[in-house]
Amino acid sequence: MKEELSEIKYDANGLVPAIVQDADAHHVLMLAYMNSTSLRLTLETGETWFWSRSRKELWHKGATSGNIQKVVEVKVDCDSDSLLIRVTSAGPACHTGNRTCFYRVYSP
Amino acid sequence: MKEELSEIKYDANGLVPAIVQDADAHHVLMLAYMNSTSLRLTLETGETWFWSRSRKELWHKGATSGNIQKVVEVKVDCDSDSLLIRVTSAGPACHTGNRTCFYRVYSP
Repeated sequence: MKEELSEIKYDANGLVPAIVQDADAHHVLMLAYMNSTSLRLTLETGETWFWSRSRKELWHKGATSGNIQKVVEVKVDCDSDSLLIRVTSAGPACHTGNRTCFYRVYSP
Repeated sequence: MKEELSEIKYDANGLVPAIVQDADAHHVLMLAYMNSTSLRLTLETGETWFWSRSRKELWHKGATSGNIQKVVEVKVDCDSDSLLIRVTSAGPACHTGNRTCFYRVYSP
């Protein structure tokens, strides 16, 4: 079922959380936020774009590090207020050099 | 590396997004939000608790449906502002009856 762009429910700041998952190994790599422009750029280019809440600017993932994320599939949840982006990537997702941003075990 | 509870960075509403992933099949099941109480209850009970933004109340996942999520591991991302909860569950995560809330393909 293909959903229309307009159906995404952005929050009060115009953002929607986007979970990025490795399409092959299935690791959850990161959580970032998209606004409508970054989602459009992601769909148009086939590479992930986000909205950086700290820098308040569009952020082409990998533009600096070279670790571009190629989009395999974009899914939307039942409430249309979060996205799941399945990607392939040549390098680590995390700025620390770890493959995933979720490299720390909180519990147990 | 075990992190202290106090290190989690909650947003202005006191919430942190929590990605729930099936620990066995690795499907991303849902995205929900936790406040500090629901995170504490999750850690204490070994079952997922969230904060329902629509109902404005604590929400013990599966309390009504019976589809309790048993916590295998809680991870925190590099920025300490999102959680990854790896779980096992006897039934579907989505209120629609789908195994995952991300059952709709948005693109391609």
